[in-house]
Amino acid sequence: MDLDLLRTLVVNHSTKIVLCSLDGLGGLPRPGTGQSELAVARLPNLHALAARSACGLIRHVGPGITPGSGPGHLGLFGYDPLRYLVGRGVLEALGIDFALHPGDVAARGNFCSVDGGGRITDRRAGRIQTDVCVRLVERLRQIRLEGVEVLVEPVKEHRFVLVLRGPGLSGRVSETDPQGLGVPALEARALGPEAEKTAGLVNRFVAAARPLLADAAPANMVLLRGFDSQPALPRFPEVFGLRAAAVAAYPMYRGLARLVGMEVLATGTTFADEVATLREHWSAYDFFFLHYKDTDKAGEDGDFDAKVAALERFDAQLPDILALRPDVLVVSGDHATPSVLKGHGWQPVPALIWSQYCGADPVRHFTERACAAGTLGLLPAQDLMPLVMANALRLTKFGA
Amino acid sequence: MDLDLLRTLVVNHSTKIVLCSLDGLGGLPRPGTGQSELAVARLPNLHALAARSACGLIRHVGPGITPGSGPGHLGLFGYDPLRYLVGRGVLEALGIDFALHPGDVAARGNFCSVDGGGRITDRRAGRIQTDVCVRLVERLRQIRLEGVEVLVEPVKEHRFVLVLRGPGLSGRVSETDPQGLGVPALEARALGPEAEKTAGLVNRFVAAARPLLADAAPANMVLLRGFDSQPALPRFPEVFGLRAAAVAAYPMYRGLARLVGMEVLATGTTFADEVATLREHWSAYDFFFLHYKDTDKAGEDGDFDAKVAALERFDAQLPDILALRPDVLVVSGDHATPSVLKGHGWQPVPALIWSQYCGADPVRHFTERACAAGTLGLLPAQDLMPLVMANALRLTKFGA
Repeated sequence: MDLDLLRTLVVNHSTKIVLCSLDGLGGLPRPGTGQSELAVARLPNLHALAARSACGLIRHVGPGITPGSGPGHLGLFGYDPLRYLVGRGVLEALGIDFALHPGDVAARGNFCSVDGGGRITDRRAGRIQTDVCVRLVERLRQIRLEGVEVLVEPVKEHRFVLVLRGPGLSGRVSETDPQGLGVPALEARALGPEAEKTAGLVNRFVAAARPLLADAAPANMVLLRGFDSQPALPRFPEVFGLRAAAVAAYPMYRGLARLVGMEVLATGTTFADEVATLREHWSAYDFFFLHYKDTDKAGEDGDFDAKVAALERFDAQLPDILALRPDVLVVSGDHATPSVLKGHGWQPVPALIWSQYCGADPVRHFTERACAAGTLGLLPAQDLMPLVMANALRLTKFGA
Repeated sequence: MDLDLLRTLVVNHSTKIVLCSLDGLGGLPRPGTGQSELAVARLPNLHALAARSACGLIRHVGPGITPGSGPGHLGLFGYDPLRYLVGRGVLEALGIDFALHPGDVAARGNFCSVDGGGRITDRRAGRIQTDVCVRLVERLRQIRLEGVEVLVEPVKEHRFVLVLRGPGLSGRVSETDPQGLGVPALEARALGPEAEKTAGLVNRFVAAARPLLADAAPANMVLLRGFDSQPALPRFPEVFGLRAAAVAAYPMYRGLARLVGMEVLATGTTFADEVATLREHWSAYDFFFLHYKDTDKAGEDGDFDAKVAALERFDAQLPDILALRPDVLVVSGDHATPSVLKGHGWQPVPALIWSQYCGADPVRHFTERACAAGTLGLLPAQDLMPLVMANALRLTKFGA
C-alpha cells in the first residue's frame, strides 16, 4: 500500500493503538522436539488473546531474507523496508541515542592499529576497553573542520560514531577501511559529484586524527565506513494522523522510532518500567510502540530456555497492557531470532491483531504453526499498519 | 526478490543443496474419486519427508497460467519467468542438446508440402519419418550464406532447428509459416531495424532450400518460426554463489540448466543413473538440479496409473538421495501435468523444503491438498531459491 494513497484515507478518531514489538519473536523447534520456544512457553494470556484475535505470520523483507533491526521495525511502522533504507552509520548513531538532524552524515568508526609505515596491523585495535575509547574520542573532539560541525561519540570497545553536520553534505562516500591487514587506510572517495565536499572533509578528519592518536597504540589510527545520511522518511504521525509515542528501554529502538517522527518517552530499564510509562502517558497519545528486547537477547545467545522464560515474562505483563483497554492491540516482532540459529532468522514472525472488529479466526495458540493458519495469512510487514488503522476505525473508504 | 539485491546478501558456506524437479508433478483427482495421482500413490518416503519439511504450493507464472517447461524451470532456478523469457527457437535448440552461443539466432523449422504453385498443402509434410528428416537436413546443410554460419539440426519427424551464427544478428524476425493452407510461405520480415540483416539471411536460406527440396515431396519446402536469440540471463552460479550442476537424462532440461550457467553432468538414461551421477559428483558441487521426467510423460499420455507408478518409482529412489545427507533438499516440479488434462496444467505444484532450519509445519502428506495448508503458502516459483539459500545459511541479513 502506497503511503501517499493511505494518507488520503486517514480520518480522525479517539481510538488508541498499542503495537507490541517482541524483538526476535519467532523461533524454531528445539532439535528433536518439534516444539519452538513459543510452543514450549506457558503463555496463558497470549494464547487467550490469540483466540480473540486475527492471527497470521509477518514477512518483513522477502522470502528467505533475514531482516536487520532497522528494516524489521520500519516494516512494522508501515514502511516498505526495500524502499526506505537505513544505513549502517545512521543505525550506529541511533544505537547510542544520538539525535541526528536532517542532512547529517554519520559513519561507523573503528579505532585500529597501524605500524610505523601506516599499515594496518589490527582493524579493531585489540578491542580496547570502552573507557579507553571514551578518552580517545575526547581527543578526536578537538578536530575542527571549516564549515561543518564535527561530532564524535564513543560506542563500545573500539567503536565510535562520527557525525558531520552542516550544509551540502552527502553520505555517498566510500569507506576508508581496506577490510584487510598490511595495507594503509584508504582515502575516502566521493561516489557522486554531490559528495566531493564530504569526502574532502572526511579525509581532513582522518589526517587530523593521525597525530592526535600517534602515541595511543594500539589505537593509533581510525577507520570509517557506512557513511550515510538520515533517510528522508515520511513522518509517521503525519502519514497515519496519529499522536505516536515510543516506549523502549534500548536506544536503537528509540532511535528508529525517532527516525519516523514518533515522540520518544523517557522510561526505565525493564519492561515493567516500559508498561508503567505506557500507563502514565496513556491519555496523551493515540499510538504506542512498545518494544520488548529480552526475546531477542535470549535468541542471540542461543539460549532456548532463556527465550522461553522471556516470552513468559512478557505474557505476565500482558494483563497490565490489556487493563488500559486499547482499541487495537498488536503483538508481533521485527524478525525471528531462533535460538538454534543464535541470530536473526528469515522465518516469518507470528502476529496478532486484536480489536472489536478484528474478525477473530480459529487460531487458539500464539505459535508459529498455529498462526500459519490464521486469517492474516502471510502478511508483508508494511501491510500491518493499514490493517491496524482500519481496526482503529481510522481509515475511510477508498472510492465512493 | 530482485536478483541484484539478493546477490549482495550471498555468503559462502559449505552446505549442499539438492533441488529435485519432478516434471509435471502436480495432478488432479481422477473423476469421481476425489483422489489425485499423489493421493493415490504409495509414497512412504515422500510423506515422511513432508512431515519433517516446510510445505506449500508453487505457482510458476501467474493464476491460471499454464507454464511451459522453460518458464517452469526458470522459476525453480530463481528467475521471474515473466521477466526472463526464453523463446521457441531457443527451447527447440536446447531440446536437442544444441550448444547455443551468445548472439546465435535459432528458429524452429518444419518440413512442409507445397503444390506446383508453391501453395502449402500440408504444414507438417505428412509427419515424415525422422530418418527422412535427417537426410533432408543433410541437404539443407549445403546452404552457405555470406557472413554467417548456417547450422541445421534434425529434431523429430518433420521438425528441425535452424541456427544462424555470426555478428549483428537479431531474433526479431517474423515467421514464414502462414499458419494456414492454400497460400505460399511468407517472406520473413524484420520486426525492428536491428533485424534487417537477419530477415534477409532467412529469406535467402528459404530461397536456397526450395531447389534443394524440389524432388523431396511431401517434404518439398520449409517453414520457419519462433526466431529467437539466447536471452542474457544472470548466471546462476554468480547470482547465488553456488557451484551448480545439473543432472538430467533429457536434453531440454540439460539445455535450460546450461542456459543459466550450470554445469551439465554426463549421466545415463534412467533416474537411477541420475542418482548415481549425483553420488559420484557429490563433493564437487554445492547445488544439484536433479530432473525426473517420468511423471510428466505419464501425465501427457493421460495415463493416471502410469503417473502413480512414476511417483512411486521416484519415492523408491528418495532414500538414496537422502543418504547423501544434503543440507537442503527441495522436492517440487516445473508445472502440473494432470492426467485428466493430458498436458501441462495451470494448477500450483506441491513443494517441500527440508533443512535443519526449515520450521516443519503440520503437513503430513505430500499431496496437492495437504500442501495447500503448509507454511510456504502459495509461493511464486522465483521465491523458492531465496528460501533455499536461507535454509542453506548462505544469505546474510538485510540491513543492520
